[in-house]
Amino acid sequence: MNTEQQKTLVLSGDNVNSIVDLYGLNNLMDRLIEELERAIQSFDANNTEIPIRSGFNYENANPGLVEWMPLYKKDKEVVIKVVGYHPKNPDVHSLPTILSTISSYDTATGHLKGLVDGVLLTALRTGATSAIASKYLAKPTSSILGLIGCGAQSITQLHALSRVFDLKKVLLYDVDSDAITSFRDRSEMLDLAVEISQASLTEIMRQSDIVCTSTSIDVGQGPLFDNVETNRSIHINAVGSDFPGKTELPLNLLKNSLVVPDFLQQAVIEGECQQLEAKDIGPDLVDLIQNQKRFEQVKKSSTVFDSTGWALEDQVVMDLFLNLANEFSIGLELAIENTSADAKNPYHYFLKSVQVS
Amino acid sequence: MNTEQQKTLVLSGDNVNSIVDLYGLNNLMDRLIEELERAIQSFDANNTEIPIRSGFNYENANPGLVEWMPLYKKDKEVVIKVVGYHPKNPDVHSLPTILSTISSYDTATGHLKGLVDGVLLTALRTGATSAIASKYLAKPTSSILGLIGCGAQSITQLHALSRVFDLKKVLLYDVDSDAITSFRDRSEMLDLAVEISQASLTEIMRQSDIVCTSTSIDVGQGPLFDNVETNRSIHINAVGSDFPGKTELPLNLLKNSLVVPDFLQQAVIEGECQQLEAKDIGPDLVDLIQNQKRFEQVKKSSTVFDSTGWALEDQVVMDLFLNLANEFSIGLELAIENTSADAKNPYHYFLKSVQVS
Repeated sequence: MNTEQQKTLVLSGDNVNSIVDLYGLNNLMDRLIEELERAIQSFDANNTEIPIRSGFNYENANPGLVEWMPLYKKDKEVVIKVVGYHPKNPDVHSLPTILSTISSYDTATGHLKGLVDGVLLTALRTGATSAIASKYLAKPTSSILGLIGCGAQSITQLHALSRVFDLKKVLLYDVDSDAITSFRDRSEMLDLAVEISQASLTEIMRQSDIVCTSTSIDVGQGPLFDNVETNRSIHINAVGSDFPGKTELPLNLLKNSLVVPDFLQQAVIEGECQQLEAKDIGPDLVDLIQNQKRFEQVKKSSTVFDSTGWALEDQVVMDLFLNLANEFSIGLELAIENTSADAKNPYHYFLKSVQVS
Repeated sequence: MNTEQQKTLVLSGDNVNSIVDLYGLNNLMDRLIEELERAIQSFDANNTEIPIRSGFNYENANPGLVEWMPLYKKDKEVVIKVVGYHPKNPDVHSLPTILSTISSYDTATGHLKGLVDGVLLTALRTGATSAIASKYLAKPTSSILGLIGCGAQSITQLHALSRVFDLKKVLLYDVDSDAITSFRDRSEMLDLAVEISQASLTEIMRQSDIVCTSTSIDVGQGPLFDNVETNRSIHINAVGSDFPGKTELPLNLLKNSLVVPDFLQQAVIEGECQQLEAKDIGPDLVDLIQNQKRFEQVKKSSTVFDSTGWALEDQVVMDLFLNLANEFSIGLELAIENTSADAKNPYHYFLKSVQVS
């Protein structure tokens, strides 16, 4: 019996941090962008099945949702991310709103290969995906980045984009002035030579080459702005819209832009694409990247990447961390599954040891 | 911050065995039957959502499937069992065909409360459910049990039924004579005062008060028998049929019996109910138990419990083991989730520690 196969590698949030420590934050983001771009380039729906995510969404005294995002990669693995979203967590339980874990199952045996805390991995892959989309949709000379919403996502968006573009200036907008004030401190460890300043929505949309929207605007309260003049070749990574009824961008801006969803079926339910008819939606990210010659002109026009979160991103970042964990010998290897040799007897273990009473 | 909330209790197969050791196999089965019966009696679809299971089913050089069975219990938990089924495991990898783990998430926060090996728990709950169904469908004086298919399931079926009925005689049938020969040894630790003998299908169906079918008949190869006379008040627990195209019982027997599915929507896809039209299907297990007065006469007639495996069973057995694990201080408590206090900065941890290079 191959005892290696029976171990589950568990990576806690602390283990994940240690891996980033050892590998370096910039090295890690660069490698993630590279591996994720390659995965999108070679994505083949015949080999990788990604059903739309599904879950339980409850509206009671303590509203929240638990959802699962499954992926099957032929002859390799099934990856399932389970995400909890509980908006009262910070105030009531001193816990983050979002908790998540990612599990990987070997398709040769069904064995649970790994279980990894999903919080940092999700933030990293969301940033990396925006950077990749921007590489194909924004002007290569883009140097001004606008961040609408300066929470957790904005840090990884800035980081990932800074690895692909030579950013000179970052413009900040948030309804919460504390988020703007603290942004400089929070982004300091990225050690970027950029000018950071607060700006109005109007200024951001007119001046920025690339904008990332990642706000927590309430369902039904969008868009964030309307009738605002934009830089003509603006590219927007619309990250915040990820729930039915939650949208950030105005309809006329979407209609005048090439809108690229990460995952069409999901984007029409919970992304900016909710607002659009099929005819107004552009290629998805896979189509864009696999057929880039056909879409070369788009860098000169207004574009939107409708990012709702795709299981392929989770699989790539999960594999990267499992590989690095093995390389650095980080994490806890546990024998969780019962692999008792007597397949015909679930009580095998008790044959001699238990006195039935 | 409540640090208790951040720990995930991991119970390996070994931990599960230790819990059974300490509590006693019979005590455990009795308590499981009691708690599961109570859960079915009080089941309310307004408080417990159970979608049909879903998964990836692959047919390549190494066929298999990975599926997930989710449940949401209002104001308590989300439970997800992930099951791998890989028929080549025993020969190729010296691993069991079925591997599974069950996870429980607190609906107050989304926190992963527990992760438990699912193999023994599944066997136990499948046995317990047959015992409960038999209590409501079979004659109270039932004393002869027929086991068609003498693999792993037959042990837990016998065990659970022996806790509810005063069994005198067990009749065995299996296409694999080794399974019959080894059955006596495998069931020895149950310490039952029953007469065990091999029998033909015809004898089993004519003599038994209760029959359990749990064979591994191939898809499309059913039924196991046809045109066989049965004990007029026979009750059959049809356990083996759990896949589209896989059925064990002949259509005329089903049509002449009250057929009670565990979970109707699922049973019509993968249970014996595949063979039936809606009009030929009886109440489901919840309806039967919650309205037992209406169905009292059924104990005198031929009945079939169509057991496909229901997430409620997994939730009840999972909770029982998590409770016992806490009681006996068994299992590993791990802080898996990143619950970093700075919700606005996924890179919080790196602020001071990382030299970005």
